[in-house]
Amino acid sequence: MSALPTSADQPMLLRRDQDGVAWLTLNRPAQFNSLSRAMLENLIAALDEIAADHSVRVVVLAGEGKAFCAGHDLKEMRGNHTLAFQQELFRLCGKFMMKITELPQPVIARIHGIATAAGCQLVSMCDLAVAADVARFAVSGINVGLFCATPSVGLSRNLGRKQAFEMLVTGDFIDAHEAQQRGLVNRVVPLEQLDEEVSRLAASIVAKSPVAVRMGKQMFYKQLEMGLDAAYQLAAETMACNMMTEDAAEGIDAFIAKRKPEWRGK
Amino acid sequence: MSALPTSADQPMLLRRDQDGVAWLTLNRPAQFNSLSRAMLENLIAALDEIAADHSVRVVVLAGEGKAFCAGHDLKEMRGNHTLAFQQELFRLCGKFMMKITELPQPVIARIHGIATAAGCQLVSMCDLAVAADVARFAVSGINVGLFCATPSVGLSRNLGRKQAFEMLVTGDFIDAHEAQQRGLVNRVVPLEQLDEEVSRLAASIVAKSPVAVRMGKQMFYKQLEMGLDAAYQLAAETMACNMMTEDAAEGIDAFIAKRKPEWRGK
Amino acid sequence: MSALPTSADQPMLLRRDQDGVAWLTLNRPAQFNSLSRAMLENLIAALDEIAADHSVRVVVLAGEGKAFCAGHDLKEMRGNHTLAFQQELFRLCGKFMMKITELPQPVIARIHGIATAAGCQLVSMCDLAVAADVARFAVSGINVGLFCATPSVGLSRNLGRKQAFEMLVTGDFIDAHEAQQRGLVNRVVPLEQLDEEVSRLAASIVAKSPVAVRMGKQMFYKQLEMGLDAAYQLAAETMACNMMTEDAAEGIDAFIAKRKPEWRGK
Repeated sequence: MSALPTSADQPMLLRRDQDGVAWLTLNRPAQFNSLSRAMLENLIAALDEIAADHSVRVVVLAGEGKAFCAGHDLKEMRGNHTLAFQQELFRLCGKFMMKITELPQPVIARIHGIATAAGCQLVSMCDLAVAADVARFAVSGINVGLFCATPSVGLSRNLGRKQAFEMLVTGDFIDAHEAQQRGLVNRVVPLEQLDEEVSRLAASIVAKSPVAVRMGKQMFYKQLEMGLDAAYQLAAETMACNMMTEDAAEGIDAFIAKRKPEWRGK
Repeated sequence: MSALPTSADQPMLLRRDQDGVAWLTLNRPAQFNSLSRAMLENLIAALDEIAADHSVRVVVLAGEGKAFCAGHDLKEMRGNHTLAFQQELFRLCGKFMMKITELPQPVIARIHGIATAAGCQLVSMCDLAVAADVARFAVSGINVGLFCATPSVGLSRNLGRKQAFEMLVTGDFIDAHEAQQRGLVNRVVPLEQLDEEVSRLAASIVAKSPVAVRMGKQMFYKQLEMGLDAAYQLAAETMACNMMTEDAAEGIDAFIAKRKPEWRGK
Repeated sequence: MSALPTSADQPMLLRRDQDGVAWLTLNRPAQFNSLSRAMLENLIAALDEIAADHSVRVVVLAGEGKAFCAGHDLKEMRGNHTLAFQQELFRLCGKFMMKITELPQPVIARIHGIATAAGCQLVSMCDLAVAADVARFAVSGINVGLFCATPSVGLSRNLGRKQAFEMLVTGDFIDAHEAQQRGLVNRVVPLEQLDEEVSRLAASIVAKSPVAVRMGKQMFYKQLEMGLDAAYQLAAETMACNMMTEDAAEGIDAFIAKRKPEWRGK
């Protein structure tokens, strides 16, 4: 995709579907794919569309140009210097980030370059993340007098609190390997193997029962916010319901018969 | 223990007590020690017995045969295909897992082979885990159309959320070293040193004051589910009460006098 | 500082301010800087003073002599063997630890030697921690019949639960590198570079907008205890307010103009 020419006429968000995977690409390379209000609205609309589209089984979020995503659009923020504008911007940002978690399909971040501020937040809020070894991560708002408050929500739910706090008050970068070790990304590969690795991870999920993946993702984030006892009650009920689906019956029968399952559920 | 012959007459759960340690061994090797309803009922009964047995200071959970535990009994589940059966099964499973946390004595998982689905959950719910370097871990239900919902409860409280999510939607194995690095197990040793290492860890706990260990374990899991302020209130009260026990007085006096303490508390 | 002679006349808590950093040094080296009631009261008073002192932008907590801090004063505890005394001691300890979190300024632990029991808790409760490679960490109360209940609160919010539990029931030490890998400390350096590294980290924070750091630290710990949705609401509001400060306007304008920002906010 990085071979495509981009221009003022091109949409700021590209979508390409292939083999059950929707590749969404932030396409404002000259602005390092910053999350302007318009970009956030485009992303929300795209996720709403995908949520209802049963042909999509996995979403990949990528960035065009040098950076993955450099956070919000600082010029736009300074150009609209009212509290109401800022509140609306960060409300919109939070809404988009929550939509990733609420989306029935798993979302994989594909990080090929820097991911800073809300760009780093975006990585933290995706269900999964695959990074090129040249990728780097920072929550750098503190360098411009703006503590990365909304990014800290996702970051502190991926990394340990001391490691998250250090990034937030220093604004320092961590590299892809540290990001992986700390829990911010799942896999790190050389840049030239990035699409292959993302595709492999996506294909592995596409091969699973969509009903089971959907029920599982929804339950996963709910139970994370519960005490142990309540979490088990929700999980037990989910698993019993999942067990009654056609796909679980087919999956187990295929397993016992040592044949490949054929999913029917949507 | 792996030298013992097994037969249809043998109980499905073995218990052997030695030096304050109760070794519970899942004994359905031909079924990879799967957690059938009967096995769960046996485990619950065994833990209930141990909870009231002051001679037991540590529990070790092990598996007979090639696998540690391969999860639930898929044939039994398909053979009883009603929602009521599934609900009862997962209720029972949750009850057993909660009993590990509620048990006054620490529980160590001894993992010599694969631990999959509810077998991986079992590892995650034990207080401590020691694995052979050949052990492998997966939450593989998704391969048969059944998202490992109940396993995700324990898994996501041991590993980072992205790492847990990846295992849940791919069904992929991780090896013992990754399990240790990610927080699922405490120690990894060569298979031939596994019993020695488990025994060493167990003996270290047996050497401690049983009253202090019991008070501590109970408080530990309670405070994990609290905000910081409430957690400190509970912990402060627990510590003050612990300080008033005979064993703390003896322990501190022995420490000051540079002699070995003699625990009296039960 | 370690070159300074200490005597009975010296205060038990030293404070030295330099370049916006308040260095607080526990100064009971013969008692391994134990957290006696008097020491806790001194620490609380010092933090109360610093909270209102806008010239202080970062606090460093250090220890005089061989140890960083060996926990509470066991002799004092045994010499005042009433429940009321213990309750008051642990209430005071909790109050001090909470004050670190509540303090507007970030607090860095500087660990040059052993940090045990409440000394290890102190490390866990600081926002950041830099350790010498010779430093070692344990929650060793269990060795004297006293489960480290209050230390477990901070420890289990830094390390994974299995790793925290192991330390609590074995009393075993971990070294500085494991502490870093597990999330208990941020950085590890040779002893002779410890002050330089602490100073570098502190200076990096001093260079930031104090208003942004203060708003950020307060929000960070609050959102950690919330569900995702509530956390985003708090973070969005914080970020919008932060954006309306003089410092954010100056920071962003300086960034766009490629010049150094000049913070005005207090």
